[in-house]
Amino acid sequence: MAMNKSGPFEDGDSCDQENSVLQKNVHGSRLAITEPNMDHKEDIKAYMARTLNRYKETLAKRALYHIGYPANLDFDYGALAQLQAFSLNNIGDPFIEGNYRMHSREFEVAVLDWFANLWEIQKNGYWGYVTNGGTEGNLHGILVGRELLPDGILYTSRDSHYSIFKATRMYKMECVKVDTLFTGEMDYEDFRAKLLLNKDKPAIINVNIGTTMKGGVDNVDTIIQILEECGFPDDRFYIHCDGALFGIMMPFVKHSLQVSFKKQIGSITISGHKFVGCPAPCGVYIIRKQYINTISTNIEFLGSLDTTIMGSRSGHAPIFLWYALNMNGYIGFEKQVQKCLTNARYLKDRLVEEGISVMLNELSSTVVFERPLNDDFVNRWQLACQGSMAHVIVMPSVSIEKLKEFLDELLKKRKDWYKDGGVQPPCLADDIGGDNCLCPLHK
Amino acid sequence: MAMNKSGPFEDGDSCDQENSVLQKNVHGSRLAITEPNMDHKEDIKAYMARTLNRYKETLAKRALYHIGYPANLDFDYGALAQLQAFSLNNIGDPFIEGNYRMHSREFEVAVLDWFANLWEIQKNGYWGYVTNGGTEGNLHGILVGRELLPDGILYTSRDSHYSIFKATRMYKMECVKVDTLFTGEMDYEDFRAKLLLNKDKPAIINVNIGTTMKGGVDNVDTIIQILEECGFPDDRFYIHCDGALFGIMMPFVKHSLQVSFKKQIGSITISGHKFVGCPAPCGVYIIRKQYINTISTNIEFLGSLDTTIMGSRSGHAPIFLWYALNMNGYIGFEKQVQKCLTNARYLKDRLVEEGISVMLNELSSTVVFERPLNDDFVNRWQLACQGSMAHVIVMPSVSIEKLKEFLDELLKKRKDWYKDGGVQPPCLADDIGGDNCLCPLHK
Repeated sequence: MAMNKSGPFEDGDSCDQENSVLQKNVHGSRLAITEPNMDHKEDIKAYMARTLNRYKETLAKRALYHIGYPANLDFDYGALAQLQAFSLNNIGDPFIEGNYRMHSREFEVAVLDWFANLWEIQKNGYWGYVTNGGTEGNLHGILVGRELLPDGILYTSRDSHYSIFKATRMYKMECVKVDTLFTGEMDYEDFRAKLLLNKDKPAIINVNIGTTMKGGVDNVDTIIQILEECGFPDDRFYIHCDGALFGIMMPFVKHSLQVSFKKQIGSITISGHKFVGCPAPCGVYIIRKQYINTISTNIEFLGSLDTTIMGSRSGHAPIFLWYALNMNGYIGFEKQVQKCLTNARYLKDRLVEEGISVMLNELSSTVVFERPLNDDFVNRWQLACQGSMAHVIVMPSVSIEKLKEFLDELLKKRKDWYKDGGVQPPCLADDIGGDNCLCPLHK
Repeated sequence: MAMNKSGPFEDGDSCDQENSVLQKNVHGSRLAITEPNMDHKEDIKAYMARTLNRYKETLAKRALYHIGYPANLDFDYGALAQLQAFSLNNIGDPFIEGNYRMHSREFEVAVLDWFANLWEIQKNGYWGYVTNGGTEGNLHGILVGRELLPDGILYTSRDSHYSIFKATRMYKMECVKVDTLFTGEMDYEDFRAKLLLNKDKPAIINVNIGTTMKGGVDNVDTIIQILEECGFPDDRFYIHCDGALFGIMMPFVKHSLQVSFKKQIGSITISGHKFVGCPAPCGVYIIRKQYINTISTNIEFLGSLDTTIMGSRSGHAPIFLWYALNMNGYIGFEKQVQKCLTNARYLKDRLVEEGISVMLNELSSTVVFERPLNDDFVNRWQLACQGSMAHVIVMPSVSIEKLKEFLDELLKKRKDWYKDGGVQPPCLADDIGGDNCLCPLHK
């Protein structure tokens, strides 16, 4: 057991941002596991306690600057710590009590019922499960689409999450990328044109309820209308909704388009660790019950059906969600959504005031703005970047004070970066629209 | 908030074993989430505390009779409870420090390095990650196989885990089921015959390092030899090893066949919640590094590569594993494996003494025996059943005392079930071989 390692978690220790991601591929030998001396078990425990303490301090620091990704860090599951002593596995179908009894299915079904109500589908009309995250829900929804419509083409906008494109590759599906508007929303005329080019094949559509980079929301009503106008009857299309972050926020945004099973959609998925907040990634997936038989297999030794992608599933995740839903309820989440939208608007307005290119979609808390020039700054604030854009995602754990601190630092740094005029702020006209771009050309 | 619900977790409350699994599909409204009264937050907390207490008591009872599935319930991660306050996501590639900083990659890489050493592959020669469980590793390994050999046929024995067959369906792969011996091990002559029938297409082989029901181990040396003899050079086959339970136990079994990257295998996966034991399902997956480029995609906004199936991944799972590996080391696991094998042999010998049909593979702790007649008994001891067989899997948490308790109860019940001779114990000759069958006919 190597006891004298230098601190493994000092920030900025691990990568040179100038390198490409591939060059960053290194082994973290600082935490290497060495063969324990069983006569000195207390030494091992002491070594690990020191390591974990340093790690905790590092995490606490990193959490202060976590504003670029959709993860609500503001939760208190202390009441559930007592359950960590149990190995909980919701293997198999959530609605079937199999022989494996160390599970939390009762909590899982309660969580699913809550979401079924939110998205307006009857208890006896849906099936679903608590997943390992948004990707698993996307993999499931698209798989069901393919099984229902084996020669269907998947239509999805080019701003879709990478898991959608991964699914089409895994499932050997033909994928047609639809153009987007600068808001990140689907370009419906391009969708129509591409549908008409492929009228002979059924359509499987992934609808983004909040794109990853810009928080753009595809209009499901418009999409269904175009399908009808192009001559696709109900049994010739399948709609899956990727609601990763925004699928749970949108129902609480007044006057917003609603995602609902009253419309002709097949499945929805959201992430549990994003807006709700959870120690580990998880998600919720709901689908019309009549579709699930296409992919279920009876597994005799479990006394259950294999209806999920992952088989074995965390029994803790549903309890975290159950706890959070009980504590917040619709009324609590509505308040938090409003707070996020208000704080996002504050950030956007302040950036405009300072002459910085920025865009905020009406229904979103994802603030897209010019990519900061310096990678250390990007890294410190854990900003997600793409081309000339960066974004901040205002989650319940991102307060006005935090945003002020960020703005102060950005403005100070920015003066330095652009002081001599040799380097100019990037043009974002193509990314977020000419009206939102405040680069020297478009100002 | 419904406060007066009857106890939701009483055992035997939830299913009538006479019904088919589909009829068991009911909604657990007893834990339904109702809108909280925000003026009485303390009432909500009190309700949840009572519910969680009852649940904990139920789990503790269920854990006493959990002997039919491969989950080691014997762990103490108390030192890690402090980390539950953090949202940890190892999204993206384990070896690349992206912009998302709330992660535990340092721990993950240390865990992977430990397994790389166990399975004899150099640090710079492997890639891998901590998965959500054995299924994810299987999905990854088979996907890589298909991407390397796009028109390859998947060969796997009919005793393989259901996730293997699910993968072939998801990936639209041709799947050839190979017969098995009564031990659960692949029938190599059938494999050879089926290979020769399809010589024009590459072979992707799933090798079971311990089948789910019988703990049968496919001999990877024999499989490679047959591939060579049938004229399949290295670049015309890909071998994935499903080592769910036994892939980590086997290296500690003396004189056993070894799974090693010194042989021509491509990938191995094991489950972390099985032999090691973990609060939630997880797994470890290791693959030769040169193969991973076939499925990786650069994801700019993460500053990482999308190389995994699930994208977002628990940052807690690697820390649980890191802790367990540090505490046990090779020497600790070797002791535990020996204990499991000894206890399994004890159970087998006692069953033989009592004239009960039973089989135990030499390298395994999975004891296969006649299915108990009564479903309540099966349910109480959480036995996995298939046809006329049931099994007990002796994990570190299954003690001799527990096995004695089980045997006492089984023998008592059995006297009752078979007392008047009207019903006879089942014949298991076809399942576990005539020599192991002690039914009235074969006794």
